[in-house]
Amino acid sequence: MAAIKVHGGLLSTATQRVLACLYEKGIDFQFVPINMATGEHKSENYLSLNVIIRVFHESNISRPPFGQVPAFEDGDLKLFESRAITHYIAHEYSDKGTQLLIPGSNKDMAVLQLWKEVEAHQFDSPSSKIAWEAFYKPFFGMVTDSAAVEENEGKLAKVLDVYEARLTQSKYLASDCFTLADLHHLPNIQCLLATPAKKLIDSRPHVCAWVKEITARPAWSKVLAMQKH
Amino acid sequence: MAAIKVHGGLLSTATQRVLACLYEKGIDFQFVPINMATGEHKSENYLSLNVIIRVFHESNISRPPFGQVPAFEDGDLKLFESRAITHYIAHEYSDKGTQLLIPGSNKDMAVLQLWKEVEAHQFDSPSSKIAWEAFYKPFFGMVTDSAAVEENEGKLAKVLDVYEARLTQSKYLASDCFTLADLHHLPNIQCLLATPAKKLIDSRPHVCAWVKEITARPAWSKVLAMQKH
Ligand SMILES: N[C@@H](CCC(=O)N[C@@H](CS)C(=O)NCC(=O)O)C(=O)O
Ligand SMILES: N[C@@H](CCC(=O)N[C@@H](CS)C(=O)NCC(=O)O)C(=O)O
Repeated sequence: MAAIKVHGGLLSTATQRVLACLYEKGIDFQFVPINMATGEHKSENYLSLNVIIRVFHESNISRPPFGQVPAFEDGDLKLFESRAITHYIAHEYSDKGTQLLIPGSNKDMAVLQLWKEVEAHQFDSPSSKIAWEAFYKPFFGMVTDSAAVEENEGKLAKVLDVYEARLTQSKYLASDCFTLADLHHLPNIQCLLATPAKKLIDSRPHVCAWVKEITARPAWSKVLAMQKH
Repeated sequence: MAAIKVHGGLLSTATQRVLACLYEKGIDFQFVPINMATGEHKSENYLSLNVIIRVFHESNISRPPFGQVPAFEDGDLKLFESRAITHYIAHEYSDKGTQLLIPGSNKDMAVLQLWKEVEAHQFDSPSSKIAWEAFYKPFFGMVTDSAAVEENEGKLAKVLDVYEARLTQSKYLASDCFTLADLHHLPNIQCLLATPAKKLIDSRPHVCAWVKEITARPAWSKVLAMQKH
């Protein structure tokens, strides 16, 4: 039995982030599907706190605090928050599979950290909101709020302008190699490609080439293939 | 002249996060005030991208991409995103001042990373929104949206329930020592204390004790003192 377990949902972007990381590293793991409620779980349906906390501290965790997926186990270590999990995997298994960190100086690591923060604090919010409105809602038979899409397309366009300028300087966001900073974008990018916001990518040549590169990675194909089983 | 420069605003919570970190480390720096627009800069007032990008790549940077403060320089290295900056400072100057990282294994670092992510992805949004509505808006003579305050107080209460449970297990969020995970909370916590949302802290004994501890740190007093000059 694999020491590493990922509790999550295959439609959950945060879960996909962790799965992509594990496949890049070529590490064995067990996927434990969590039955997510449909659409509504986004706003309501928080598990009662006591249940969450208790559950998380038992060996057989299902959901972490905040009632969100993914949750992660590596032996005794239990984690949640997708980007904390990828950080751990990249460091703990640095000698396996794809190098997802920039080796070298604190200054190079700082640049990686910067682009990870940009994903988390600039890209994630508008892209998740568009994904929710224009990808997940139709999928769940709910009605898209087109004003919200438009507002967030405006915000995302400004973020992608910065990416376009950055990607003239290096092949990937943090360096000329693929790193966690790129990987963290994959789940939301994949959703965007299935919405009209794809135009924001297509109209920016360097962003478009970068999206092609990162979505074509074999590890990412494996995540997408899991959804088809 | 100090090699380290912080470009920012003393009322900016993201700037304060970086200043608190530098004072914890006891590192010399030069503060370069950026004249922020009043309230409206939050939603509009993005500098035109060309100006931002160009400016950021010149040696005399004033504002980074995204038109937000703080921006940071350490010699040739230019950074933005407050949490990327504190990460860099904590690693680059690990031998100075307060230890802000957990020394030791990848597993211990993973727990630190987890609580940093919780601040960024669970605490920051509701607490910033309350700070904006109930602290900054009245300060700028604007009208508080009390429905927004109420909604975010509900979200923040759930986050602080998790903190209350966590702080029965360790004195600070990531361990029994003060780390970056705690430090990152300081600016928003300080705003909350000046709003009715203070009740959410006061009613949770472990959270309340933790808030007392972290806001009493001499480094934080120095940040607050800068506002008074
Ligand atoms: N910041 C968290 C976000 C996790 C998250 O939002 N997960 C969603 C699915 S992608 C979820 O579990 N939603 C249920 C809920 O919020 O109640 C992470 O990166 O792990
Ligand atoms: N995620 C960024 C946020 C920076 C930020 O929001 N800065 C605010 C002041 S606290 C700002 O510059 N606002 C101006 C704007 O957004 O146009 C960080 O942590 O540095």
